[in-house]
Amino acid sequence: MRPDAGLELAVTTDMLIEGRHFSADAEPRALGHKALAVNLSDLAAIGAAPRWALLAIGLPSVDEAWLEAFSAGFFALAGRYGVELVGGDTTRSSLRTLSITAIGEVPAGVALYRAAARPGDDVWVSGELGGPALALKHPEIAAAAKRLNEPEPRVELGERLRGLAHAAIDVSDGLAADLGHILERSRVGAVIEYARIPRNAFFGEFPDLEKDCVLSGGDDYELAFTAAQSRRGAIEALAAELGLPLARIGSIQPGEPKLSVLDARGQPMSWRPGFDHFADGA
Amino acid sequence: MRPDAGLELAVTTDMLIEGRHFSADAEPRALGHKALAVNLSDLAAIGAAPRWALLAIGLPSVDEAWLEAFSAGFFALAGRYGVELVGGDTTRSSLRTLSITAIGEVPAGVALYRAAARPGDDVWVSGELGGPALALKHPEIAAAAKRLNEPEPRVELGERLRGLAHAAIDVSDGLAADLGHILERSRVGAVIEYARIPRNAFFGEFPDLEKDCVLSGGDDYELAFTAAQSRRGAIEALAAELGLPLARIGSIQPGEPKLSVLDARGQPMSWRPGFDHFADGA
Repeated sequence: MRPDAGLELAVTTDMLIEGRHFSADAEPRALGHKALAVNLSDLAAIGAAPRWALLAIGLPSVDEAWLEAFSAGFFALAGRYGVELVGGDTTRSSLRTLSITAIGEVPAGVALYRAAARPGDDVWVSGELGGPALALKHPEIAAAAKRLNEPEPRVELGERLRGLAHAAIDVSDGLAADLGHILERSRVGAVIEYARIPRNAFFGEFPDLEKDCVLSGGDDYELAFTAAQSRRGAIEALAAELGLPLARIGSIQPGEPKLSVLDARGQPMSWRPGFDHFADGA
Repeated sequence: MRPDAGLELAVTTDMLIEGRHFSADAEPRALGHKALAVNLSDLAAIGAAPRWALLAIGLPSVDEAWLEAFSAGFFALAGRYGVELVGGDTTRSSLRTLSITAIGEVPAGVALYRAAARPGDDVWVSGELGGPALALKHPEIAAAAKRLNEPEPRVELGERLRGLAHAAIDVSDGLAADLGHILERSRVGAVIEYARIPRNAFFGEFPDLEKDCVLSGGDDYELAFTAAQSRRGAIEALAAELGLPLARIGSIQPGEPKLSVLDARGQPMSWRPGFDHFADGA
């Protein structure tokens, strides 16, 4: 790899295991897309432009049709963002196992960090939340399942937030949990209004599932970020330019790293803690 | 990561799975060492100085004692070469699964490539071969088991071979198979003399296993490389300086990418093909 001079590199890795992160009969083309997408989402959250990827893959046997479809999904997304596959490893594994590392570039000094939120900042989130978590329970809802299986990493948004946002994170473990990471690292609190959180329009038949999916579901791969109030106009213009809704859902407060979510009457809401990778039954 | 200006980056990834690459009762400190060592060995083979690593790890449960010992082995080796852990991922997996990515730096234009061997080059190999493969069959031989479980990546040698060697590879799948990769990529042949290959001194009781372990065993993590004959003196001086034996075992020939191994009487020897990750029973 030959990085351009004066750029910093950002790097991220994710491991996906059959039976835990995807089902044995997962459509391989969608899986190839998603395995790369979750890594590009991590790079977007730091404001980096993706450039290179490595793929380590464990498979129970050489299944040409599966590999062809997986590769098609992987390379279609890679090609869209100019990501070059520069290395990898293959081995035999009883469960399909995918480990991807993605490397991106960002100009020195403008990367977005979890620790950079400041009191008075607005809290923003891109797109709509909750659909992927609903699809885990109701895979028959095709539009929600597509959001779960083929998430769209917010690559352009991440790059454009350089110099505009303070802190950013991608929503992978649930909005409340991921905002919590920003609060802890930035040593600030936040208040958000539940009614302002954009959510997928799939909850009509399942109103009881909505709050849990929207606040705690995860797998959304939208970006949550904070920015100075003076940037509202610029962020709204960016939303229009990208054709991607950006919703202002609350604000950063001084004090303890505590998140308050208020309902329509201004009362505090409770929510389920985010995904714990080692919790029993998770 | 902030690469130094004018340097190229080399990157490598390896996936290790319990039951396939290591046993369930593998000593965790040695495993932490080896998981990083095999990646540093890949960087050494291209002449890169290791700088950063990422660790994705799947575990059946949170076992503090295991993790502490694994980390001790990993960080002891990382610290020795100034390798910084810059990212990772943890998840639950029924089988322990380790996926490491290592990134190194090399000045522009001096990286060692498999495709760079030239007719007339000498073929060299570092250290001694065969012990790790013997340990797979006879783990009671403690010195051989140590070579298998705690391989020493030839980091300094790789860096010092810049500008001195043409092609290089690390011996992970067996000397014959790995030399074969150089021959194929360089589109040249080679003749080596079996008697000149340095081998571990563990074969006294097991003479029947020697040839297979030395030529086809793998897991040695020594470097095999080619260099012009005019470099013999410099390479011998380097061996003395590093305190690491470097043996001249044969030469590169024009023509087909075919390896000939000659016995003490100059007769061609046969050998088992190298490790096939998808072969039945392998």
